[in-house]
Amino acid sequence: MAPFITFEGIEGSGKTTQIQRLTKLLHQQGHSVLQTREPGGCSIADQIRGILLHPDNAEMDSRAELLLYAAARAQHIEQIVRPALNDNKVVICDRFTDATIAYQGDGRGLDRDLISQLNHLAAGNCRPGLTLLFDLPVETGLSRALQRESEQQNCTEGRFEREKTEFHQRIRNGYLQLAKSEPQRVKIIQADRSPEQVFEQVRGFVDSFLQAEDEK
Amino acid sequence: MAPFITFEGIEGSGKTTQIQRLTKLLHQQGHSVLQTREPGGCSIADQIRGILLHPDNAEMDSRAELLLYAAARAQHIEQIVRPALNDNKVVICDRFTDATIAYQGDGRGLDRDLISQLNHLAAGNCRPGLTLLFDLPVETGLSRALQRESEQQNCTEGRFEREKTEFHQRIRNGYLQLAKSEPQRVKIIQADRSPEQVFEQVRGFVDSFLQAEDEK
Ligand SMILES: Nc1ncnc2c1ncn2[C@@H]1O[C@H](COP(=O)(O)OP(=O)(O)OP(=O)(O)O)[C@@H](O)[C@H]1O
Ligand SMILES: Nc1ncnc2c1ncn2[C@@H]1O[C@H](COP(=O)(O)OP(=O)(O)OP(=O)(O)O)[C@@H](O)[C@H]1O
Ligand SMILES: [Mg+2]
Ligand SMILES: [Mg+2]
Repeated sequence: MAPFITFEGIEGSGKTTQIQRLTKLLHQQGHSVLQTREPGGCSIADQIRGILLHPDNAEMDSRAELLLYAAARAQHIEQIVRPALNDNKVVICDRFTDATIAYQGDGRGLDRDLISQLNHLAAGNCRPGLTLLFDLPVETGLSRALQRESEQQNCTEGRFEREKTEFHQRIRNGYLQLAKSEPQRVKIIQADRSPEQVFEQVRGFVDSFLQAEDEK
Repeated sequence: MAPFITFEGIEGSGKTTQIQRLTKLLHQQGHSVLQTREPGGCSIADQIRGILLHPDNAEMDSRAELLLYAAARAQHIEQIVRPALNDNKVVICDRFTDATIAYQGDGRGLDRDLISQLNHLAAGNCRPGLTLLFDLPVETGLSRALQRESEQQNCTEGRFEREKTEFHQRIRNGYLQLAKSEPQRVKIIQADRSPEQVFEQVRGFVDSFLQAEDEK
């Protein structure tokens, strides 16, 4: 299978900004690239995303939420990710299974085994070979995300962004634990630097990864 | 917990028709009743139902479908069913966990263990004490369902109704197996009779069940 790279980290850590840069660079280098995101990435998963992120759905049960993420993932994988990988494209995905572990596991406190099972059910053998974890203080991330929304004159914060700082702190810690337990795959990006400095780190990890994949 | 009754059977078998009659009768008898349905029954689950039943979503992955049903069920149980049962209401639900076994298991051929796990995850200890299985030839059910839609001047058949007769035949058989394996809970209704004759059967089973519950 072709290289599969995921971007992870709390809100406002700069994932989407850097994915766009990376996709552009890889294109320039002659790679065939699919850039996608979760939840979403195809029509049915986008419909599910709409339910997950709608601020009116605050009364959502945490198990229902977990199952919706898994449903969106199963659809996205079958319809978009797996075909692209089979087609030898580099797939770059904005959030993936680790986000479910960090948000629903560490954030919401749902059972880890259950989350692993659902991740496995949804993703099967589609596992990222490289995961870039954008790490920065929660306050920095949240204030960037708020700033972004006021710039977009979009004042409806998403459901997650309204959660308490403590919730995001648990998520940050959960992500860091993941990086510790899978250091081969999960690389930490110091995300509280300038976009240029962040991109240098991204580029470094991606270059080594693609080279290693090439040599396989 | 208060009595929990579910109605099951293929499309057009007359579940909704009879649930309305039963709810009316139980009200008249002084019971406090909650009538609900799956998928749906509350706002978030209704949004999920919209995705599941939309004819444009024909490319839905079968595991995504299963996960969406489970998500809708988890939300519906927590928000509607469990509170009503705790409030000592008789809950009558149009389709429930058995529908997932018959449609996704026998119909789509998904793994039974997985379905049981997801049903358990979503429903927990909320299990129906009585399930009425509306059984009739597939052709009779489907032609009633088509007739109903033409009367409602609604020509967009749902996603399931467009499936082949053979698919519905597998579902009918799956339901009958369930009745065989849990004869205490699942009672077969001969649904190819007149509405009055069908209601007599429904009434008989419900009367015995409520009486037995009372004596507990
Ligand atoms: N290195 C950086 N320094 C300062 N601001 C940044 C940096 N990277 C991105 N930003 C700005 O921070 C905001 C959030 O960035 P971005 O949308 O890329 O984050 P994200 O991780 O994708 O967030 P989300 O999880 O909410 O999608 C944007 O307004 C972006 O322009
Ligand atoms: N015993 C009956 N004999 C003949 N027609 C019936 C009978 N019961 C219901 N019908 C008619 O058949 C159609 C389907 O009935 P109904 O909607 O109650 O079925 P259902 O099991 O709820 O179907 P679905 O699974 O599609 O919701 C309706 O038009 C209804 O009026
Ligand atoms: Mg983003
Ligand atoms: Mg009905």
